[in-house]
Amino acid sequence: MSKREAIERLLNPESIAIVGVSQDFTSISGKPMKNLIRHQFKGQIYPINPKYEEIAGFTCYPSLLDIPGEVDVALIAVSSKRMMQILSECEQKNVRSVILFGSGFAEIGEEGERLQEEVLEKAKKAGITILGPNCIGLLNVKKSIPLGFSTSFETKEGFLSGNVGFASQSGALGFSLFGLAQEENIGFSHVINTGNQIDLHTLDCIAYMLEDGDTDVVAGYLEGIPDGEMLIRLAKRAKTLKKPLIVLKAGRSEIGRKAAMSHTASLTGSDETFQAIAKQYGLVTANDVDDMIDLMKVFSRGKQSNGNRVVTISNSGAAGIAMADYSEPLGLELVRLPNETQAKVEEIIPSYGSALNPIDITAQALKEQHIFTDTLEVLINEDEVDVIVIQTTFGGELGQKICKKVAEIDKTTAKPIIVTITGTAEITGEGRTILEKANVPVYTTSYKTMFAIKHLSNFSRFSRGQEPDQFEDGGVQIEENIDATGIWTEVRVKKELDSLGIKIPRGTLIKDRAHLQEVKTNVHYPVVCKGISKDVLHKTDAGSVKANIKDAAELEEAYESIVSSLHVYNPDADVEGILAEEMLQDESVEMFIGVKEDPQFGPLIVCGLGGIFVEVLKDISIRRAPITDKEAFAMLKELKGYPLLEGVRGGTTRDIQALTDALVRISQFASTHQERIQEMDINPLWVFEDGKGIAALDGIIVWKQNEETVAKAKPLI
Amino acid sequence: MSKREAIERLLNPESIAIVGVSQDFTSISGKPMKNLIRHQFKGQIYPINPKYEEIAGFTCYPSLLDIPGEVDVALIAVSSKRMMQILSECEQKNVRSVILFGSGFAEIGEEGERLQEEVLEKAKKAGITILGPNCIGLLNVKKSIPLGFSTSFETKEGFLSGNVGFASQSGALGFSLFGLAQEENIGFSHVINTGNQIDLHTLDCIAYMLEDGDTDVVAGYLEGIPDGEMLIRLAKRAKTLKKPLIVLKAGRSEIGRKAAMSHTASLTGSDETFQAIAKQYGLVTANDVDDMIDLMKVFSRGKQSNGNRVVTISNSGAAGIAMADYSEPLGLELVRLPNETQAKVEEIIPSYGSALNPIDITAQALKEQHIFTDTLEVLINEDEVDVIVIQTTFGGELGQKICKKVAEIDKTTAKPIIVTITGTAEITGEGRTILEKANVPVYTTSYKTMFAIKHLSNFSRFSRGQEPDQFEDGGVQIEENIDATGIWTEVRVKKELDSLGIKIPRGTLIKDRAHLQEVKTNVHYPVVCKGISKDVLHKTDAGSVKANIKDAAELEEAYESIVSSLHVYNPDADVEGILAEEMLQDESVEMFIGVKEDPQFGPLIVCGLGGIFVEVLKDISIRRAPITDKEAFAMLKELKGYPLLEGVRGGTTRDIQALTDALVRISQFASTHQERIQEMDINPLWVFEDGKGIAALDGIIVWKQNEETVAKAKPLI
Repeated sequence: MSKREAIERLLNPESIAIVGVSQDFTSISGKPMKNLIRHQFKGQIYPINPKYEEIAGFTCYPSLLDIPGEVDVALIAVSSKRMMQILSECEQKNVRSVILFGSGFAEIGEEGERLQEEVLEKAKKAGITILGPNCIGLLNVKKSIPLGFSTSFETKEGFLSGNVGFASQSGALGFSLFGLAQEENIGFSHVINTGNQIDLHTLDCIAYMLEDGDTDVVAGYLEGIPDGEMLIRLAKRAKTLKKPLIVLKAGRSEIGRKAAMSHTASLTGSDETFQAIAKQYGLVTANDVDDMIDLMKVFSRGKQSNGNRVVTISNSGAAGIAMADYSEPLGLELVRLPNETQAKVEEIIPSYGSALNPIDITAQALKEQHIFTDTLEVLINEDEVDVIVIQTTFGGELGQKICKKVAEIDKTTAKPIIVTITGTAEITGEGRTILEKANVPVYTTSYKTMFAIKHLSNFSRFSRGQEPDQFEDGGVQIEENIDATGIWTEVRVKKELDSLGIKIPRGTLIKDRAHLQEVKTNVHYPVVCKGISKDVLHKTDAGSVKANIKDAAELEEAYESIVSSLHVYNPDADVEGILAEEMLQDESVEMFIGVKEDPQFGPLIVCGLGGIFVEVLKDISIRRAPITDKEAFAMLKELKGYPLLEGVRGGTTRDIQALTDALVRISQFASTHQERIQEMDINPLWVFEDGKGIAALDGIIVWKQNEETVAKAKPLI
Repeated sequence: MSKREAIERLLNPESIAIVGVSQDFTSISGKPMKNLIRHQFKGQIYPINPKYEEIAGFTCYPSLLDIPGEVDVALIAVSSKRMMQILSECEQKNVRSVILFGSGFAEIGEEGERLQEEVLEKAKKAGITILGPNCIGLLNVKKSIPLGFSTSFETKEGFLSGNVGFASQSGALGFSLFGLAQEENIGFSHVINTGNQIDLHTLDCIAYMLEDGDTDVVAGYLEGIPDGEMLIRLAKRAKTLKKPLIVLKAGRSEIGRKAAMSHTASLTGSDETFQAIAKQYGLVTANDVDDMIDLMKVFSRGKQSNGNRVVTISNSGAAGIAMADYSEPLGLELVRLPNETQAKVEEIIPSYGSALNPIDITAQALKEQHIFTDTLEVLINEDEVDVIVIQTTFGGELGQKICKKVAEIDKTTAKPIIVTITGTAEITGEGRTILEKANVPVYTTSYKTMFAIKHLSNFSRFSRGQEPDQFEDGGVQIEENIDATGIWTEVRVKKELDSLGIKIPRGTLIKDRAHLQEVKTNVHYPVVCKGISKDVLHKTDAGSVKANIKDAAELEEAYESIVSSLHVYNPDADVEGILAEEMLQDESVEMFIGVKEDPQFGPLIVCGLGGIFVEVLKDISIRRAPITDKEAFAMLKELKGYPLLEGVRGGTTRDIQALTDALVRISQFASTHQERIQEMDINPLWVFEDGKGIAALDGIIVWKQNEETVAKAKPLI
């Protein structure tokens, strides 16, 4: 059975066995049964516990093997020690999908880890798929089938079904979030908690939900990334399907990572890398539970936005000011309305209101409710507007009337209408519910509204493909059969860069004294001389660089001095030679470009401006290789130091085209050699004025095979 | 009557007239009367409207003058046109405190502005204090006296009184926020909406509340700062009284400012300046309505924190990870517990839990509730812990039991205990209410909890005076009798800096050719020569700088060349002379120090690193002058470029002491000459290595008197 089929079975069981069930319905092992009864499960329920003959009117069996019929799913609530035994019974009974609730596995240390491995191995052999252990269970919201012991299952009202699918590594957080979202009338298709996820993990569940016809919005809470490549594949698939994939990734801080390790023994990657990947592949990222709910809300309504131009209608000036305050930092535009539209609005609102966006229709709307809706009608037909925000503090019957009318108008337009109602549940609750039930997103503060619009507009732009996603021909062939071992020093790296079409200074590697005599009169002076040795990587420390060599005599002197410095620095150094290279004019902006193989996401390309931008400000940009031209340009643009490339305060514009070209080519090189490359560093890379290109002045590549060489390599950044 | 007395009267009226009352209790002019009746106002109510004889059993009078008794407060709900007439009647009837609800004043433009001025003038003459116009009213929560028409007054339950006082320029936002806060069981003393605030403004109300015995926490929503000096005085007073002053300042964006102008015709200052002032004087700043409520909640509980060391107890690993994720960006420390404390916790929790902070007591606490509270008991006695966070997802009876016990323990300790309950109202609501009523702050997400702790810990530190607040003797006398007119060019500025004890390069101002002949052999070559003229401020543009002059001949040449350049650049230039100055070694970090007179807050001192830090990154630090040594150091530390002063990657440590000294002295100079100084710019100022001091290389001061000179001055930054 594929994982997909296993999840399908887990979500749609017709017969359920509960192994280790308790008669005490307030206990963890009693609750799953209580919840199935409470939500009127239509299929077979088989409680299993040798201690009882019957539970709540259901025949209780001593073991799985005693059950007369077939069992689709077994919920297993026994101690970890009995797990192997129960799995054997599952195998015999042909139960292929099980949920393990219990703890006592990897999260308690070595012993538990061993047991976990045994359990998994046994399950694989028997063709059994496991959800858990150390998990709370899952919920098919559409069919109202709760499998587990979440307090969210104990709701007196039924579940609100809808189009949001949610996979959560944490059960407590996952189902709390689900409950809070339901309170705000957000409907779900399925919720799955994966816990220790020894078999099915969050990404498997996300993969299922992406393909699920009932699910339009997929959300995941992840403490680690089980499989970086898979996450990228899912992000791409989500884009194709135009389904937003919202991710709340925990374990960002160092100490957070430690907690993640001890909690579910999962590996958490660096936050910077994750954020870069998310941006590159269009994942929607949430920072906390509130964000997640706010995002589920706006995306589940299904409307898309054509851009980031927002207009606000409010009956309170303060609300308008708040909208303006938040629009700029969130990258939204409070659009200036065309004159004729403004004139139309002016006809509707009182003279002491403001038809300038943010539109202030004033408290007069208390008396004349049509002011709100008439203004709205004008704006839904305005092409310059992408999203309409309505802000009201009206409650009671008046509020309800306005909300009803807004809900009606919302149905007539593809333009998203988002409402802010800042008020208590007592006064504004009913109006809010009217909107929510009509699929109009409502938030309680202006900030939340603008936050949601920002993400809606980003996602819409991304999924329309206005973001780069097509690879263009970099115009280069990358040689695959290279000697990808050990460390490549400057000379070898430069040879490679040259073949990639990246400009390097002209130079000669002087191999020995005889060679020196041969070339010394042919060199184009002045030159800079550098000692090349894989055993001496920090050239300045070793004193193996001499600049501004003007003639043959100085060259001979430099040669001797560098050779001797190298041997003083490291008596065993294997010296390749002395590189004599043309001196370039230092009228450039200094950059670095790096490559790093990430254990989760594969080859990353990194770039930044040199000097303080990296050293003081940690100002770098990261993408997964390979990247397109546009993506390379986007990388540069997100650097804080980017204005230096554009030419700040009358400075020269730099050759940004040549730089993006180089980024693309190096990313292609990194991609071609992924899994072989460990890290690569081109530093400095000079960017000359527009039209004059770039030059790579130094570089190193560390290949993966040799562990020893890796330790020696200098840091990438 | 002072403003203080007027506010006292407005909040505690014994007799209220409602002028222009309507029989329609759903209308704005009917609601104030309905609200007084609903909340059982104990004093006299006098409805006034010639159309009626009686309203809801109260005698209705034709005019104020017909009322038999005295009137403490008049609520005026007539159109703006009738306002002057009503004010006359108030004067005759000796009504000294009035609330004007109506709009039609400054917010509608010139005509309204004129009327507003007339109204104010009339009121001043008659000794009448005005709240409004264009306001919703106020609420004395303690006595349950609502004066106005907010929907929040229509609550079926009574108001929850408490220790938070709130002044809001916006009525809609203010009372919505009040309502939402009440829903979270935050109690208030008073809420006042100031609207167009032609007389009483938000700061007057804040001043009143600071001195009010019933108010421990003061909050303000401001669209503009009515009086910068007053805000600073209030902040200082708040510090003395140890009452947190929370401010939500709207109108931060450019477009937001425009909206603020048209809304209540108020002036909004630049956000950077406001944020700097807030930090300097210990204002607690909120970014939106949610923040404001979260801050009111934590501060109203009254506990202070000894520091930023947090410990988290949770029954879900995910919550612990979240705490860790947010602690770092918020500047909190998830403290490492001492070994013996950790051992004590280990004895309490299950073996598969984690006694490492964040402490994971596991879901076992479901069965054994004492685990939560026993762990809590251990931690309240741990000196290394400043704040304890409890995170639970437990609901129902179990959750309530735990909450009750936590509330009990909270009473036994001065250490703040903050609880996160992520769950629906249905399941966790009752537990939450138990805590709230017991004055234990509860939040629904880990982020909100950590955000609140950050502000609590910042405020506690500030109000304990660990932040700098004492001025030390800068060791300099500042000459007050100077010729503070026009523009001071480099030479005059440097003379002043020298007298302030700020190092400048040695130099000679060569006044004419005769003087040149006199000094040319005494100059310490090499020198740099600069043409000094208040008519030529951009020296480089004018070609009036020559560096590296090595001898008398070169000096003569430079002199002639500069004089001629000056006259080419500006034929009318008044040339003071040519400054010949020693060439300093360029082994420094370049800074600038500036002074700027802010229209709201007076003299500001500004500093930053030169070059890209200002040009690309806008990396500056602002304070109001004068500043102390410690404040000057804090200014430097908050610069992104600060590591350059400390010496990044093996660079030299710079003379930070000399630099802070200079900041202090210049701030004292700015403060002494406030209201006379327009702007001042010392740029560049070189900072040499530690112990070697600084040097001011160029400078300008623009004095205020002469409008023409101001226009000519080069930009400060």
